[in-house]
Amino acid sequence: MAVGELVLPEFNLIKGLRIGTASAGIKKQGRKDLVIFELAEGSTTAGVFTLNAFCAAPVQVAREHLQTTAPRYWVINTGNANAGTGALGLVAAKQTCAAVAELTEVTAQAVLPFSTGVIGEPLPMQRLVEALPQALATLSEAGWADAATGIMTTDTLPKGATASCIINGEKVVLSGVAKGAGMIKPNMATMLGFIATDATIAQPLLKQLLKEATDQSFNRITIDGDTSTNDSCMLVATSQSANISAEDLVAVAAFRDCLVSLMQTLALSIVRDGEGATKFVTIHVEQAASSAEALEAAFTVAHSPLVKTALYASDANWGRILAAVGRARGLENLDVNGVTVYLGDVLLVEQGGRAASYTEVAGAAVMKQEEITLRIQLGRGQIQETVWTCDFSHDYVSINADYRS
Amino acid sequence: MAVGELVLPEFNLIKGLRIGTASAGIKKQGRKDLVIFELAEGSTTAGVFTLNAFCAAPVQVAREHLQTTAPRYWVINTGNANAGTGALGLVAAKQTCAAVAELTEVTAQAVLPFSTGVIGEPLPMQRLVEALPQALATLSEAGWADAATGIMTTDTLPKGATASCIINGEKVVLSGVAKGAGMIKPNMATMLGFIATDATIAQPLLKQLLKEATDQSFNRITIDGDTSTNDSCMLVATSQSANISAEDLVAVAAFRDCLVSLMQTLALSIVRDGEGATKFVTIHVEQAASSAEALEAAFTVAHSPLVKTALYASDANWGRILAAVGRARGLENLDVNGVTVYLGDVLLVEQGGRAASYTEVAGAAVMKQEEITLRIQLGRGQIQETVWTCDFSHDYVSINADYRS
Repeated sequence: MAVGELVLPEFNLIKGLRIGTASAGIKKQGRKDLVIFELAEGSTTAGVFTLNAFCAAPVQVAREHLQTTAPRYWVINTGNANAGTGALGLVAAKQTCAAVAELTEVTAQAVLPFSTGVIGEPLPMQRLVEALPQALATLSEAGWADAATGIMTTDTLPKGATASCIINGEKVVLSGVAKGAGMIKPNMATMLGFIATDATIAQPLLKQLLKEATDQSFNRITIDGDTSTNDSCMLVATSQSANISAEDLVAVAAFRDCLVSLMQTLALSIVRDGEGATKFVTIHVEQAASSAEALEAAFTVAHSPLVKTALYASDANWGRILAAVGRARGLENLDVNGVTVYLGDVLLVEQGGRAASYTEVAGAAVMKQEEITLRIQLGRGQIQETVWTCDFSHDYVSINADYRS
Repeated sequence: MAVGELVLPEFNLIKGLRIGTASAGIKKQGRKDLVIFELAEGSTTAGVFTLNAFCAAPVQVAREHLQTTAPRYWVINTGNANAGTGALGLVAAKQTCAAVAELTEVTAQAVLPFSTGVIGEPLPMQRLVEALPQALATLSEAGWADAATGIMTTDTLPKGATASCIINGEKVVLSGVAKGAGMIKPNMATMLGFIATDATIAQPLLKQLLKEATDQSFNRITIDGDTSTNDSCMLVATSQSANISAEDLVAVAAFRDCLVSLMQTLALSIVRDGEGATKFVTIHVEQAASSAEALEAAFTVAHSPLVKTALYASDANWGRILAAVGRARGLENLDVNGVTVYLGDVLLVEQGGRAASYTEVAGAAVMKQEEITLRIQLGRGQIQETVWTCDFSHDYVSINADYRS
């Protein structure tokens, strides 16, 4: 069902990082639903987490542990989000860490827990804990593809990306996996991302790089505007290859470009596999007075159910696009006569109305494609921003109306 | 398809107001798509209009005319919104007023135009103007039911309400019609409302009363979060019965209550007939620190596609409700442990998790009803607000994916 090709890459292996998977039977029997990442001693780790006030127990615990100890294990379960589970949920997340710690002889604080799936059901601790030895027994540098599959929920396809760059003459590699599908919105929606590099990067710089790259990738995508309680994106540097110091601006820039590119690939994979998606849509907002208003306009269009259903219907309904721009917050003094909209390369709107040169035939030719680019020029300044989204289909309703049953 | 009973009332006739309808064939042949309200000389009129920056030509003209002249005619067409039509759209709206003026011997400024329907198509002026004499020929005090039908677009049923109250011993009557269906959101979404009373009310007071009543009715409903380019709600007082002066606080209060009640009936009719709606949902947010945050929380829940699809599925998915509350703007410091949620009378959430007393059976019993009340207590203060919405169904997607074809 995903839009475009989604094929796992040949992952670059990351020295100092091993991945194991197991079937704990958390929601369904037989599927790989437990994934463990083992990070070599000396690794540095950074994380970004959901901004939702209602954040899940594992997010609270992961954030807390990350502040005290350099992580050695990430343990991820699907099938159950351990969110909305109150004090018992916190106990369960900590028990998970303690169980891994006992099996691996690290401290519980060196383990970060991640969960995704149904909200509000107690985490089936016994089944989870019983499957941990199996996951640890399969630890391997080659576990990336299994990890990509193991963290899926309503995703139809696994998502991964791999990259490399040369830093001061030395090859540095990166690999990452992500999951998404629904509840995707800026500021970390229901998505998990696990990214690793073999480079050597001090924690403060790693944290800054992850933040910057997240703003250019996961925080620029939306499926339905709903954000989740569990979103987390982790980045580990295993300190096995080139050192990247904050002072070496050329090295930092080269690595950042590589990281942004990899994270955008993961983020766009999530949009391509959005729940029920039949179209992959890029929204450029240009000529904005500020980045904030460009993003506000772009996301208002991207979230509009009327725009999204028109995209689903391959209907070049530019009136709905303008109506969405017109209600974006912070654009109250917008002069609609200054707004220009391109659909692909076709001029659709100028001076507040349909362009004189526009024809339904030209618009329909763009709309029937699987990948559509909207370019909205506000005529208010020089700033531009891009977000990526998908359409709103009958299948979106079906998937989300049936999810718990 | 509407939720609950939607039956037109026996309208109280308003002395000094006559309504005529005709078939102009604007989009479909044979259906009544042109409605004219004639207001007696000496009437006062107030209006509220869309806040969308991209507002339609008739809204611009109506707003302008209302500032200069006491209106004598409202002329409404469906089938075409005359929005996104640029300079030519403004000409068309003004031509409509001029044509009515010529036939009725008033000034063009005494005519207010209203349009609803497809955005971005030129208004078929010739057909519209040719049908005006027929509409004027049918003017009658008894035209309310025809008006309710004549202004419909994707509405499945006409919407009307009628009321009366005693002001200083004298009976005052009110009647009104509205249309809605999609693109409904606070601050006047794609809706038109036309309300009349026979009372005598000076324009400044009438304007204030309309604003207050709109905030308690049309600005408390949402279908899909999209606002429209054409929303307008008009209130006329024909000065044929009791005088209500601003100083007579008892009279003002009595009339305001009556007006709010009538406008809430109209507003809730719009929600009951929301595009594809199968559930009518009342969302009370209580214990908020401010009205603004109560409304923000209520609308964030009401707009969440995940909540709306769960409602459609009769799924008491309280995790999605909490996740929506958790991402509402302006509630960043929300303590989720202080949040309580009731589904009907069933305690669903307490202390950030599912209530210990909650059972799926009890939740399912509420969810399977057509009318559902959610009560969300934030634990932050004493303020409460209510909004009304509907669910998100397969039919919503179908209706909006097919609308232009």
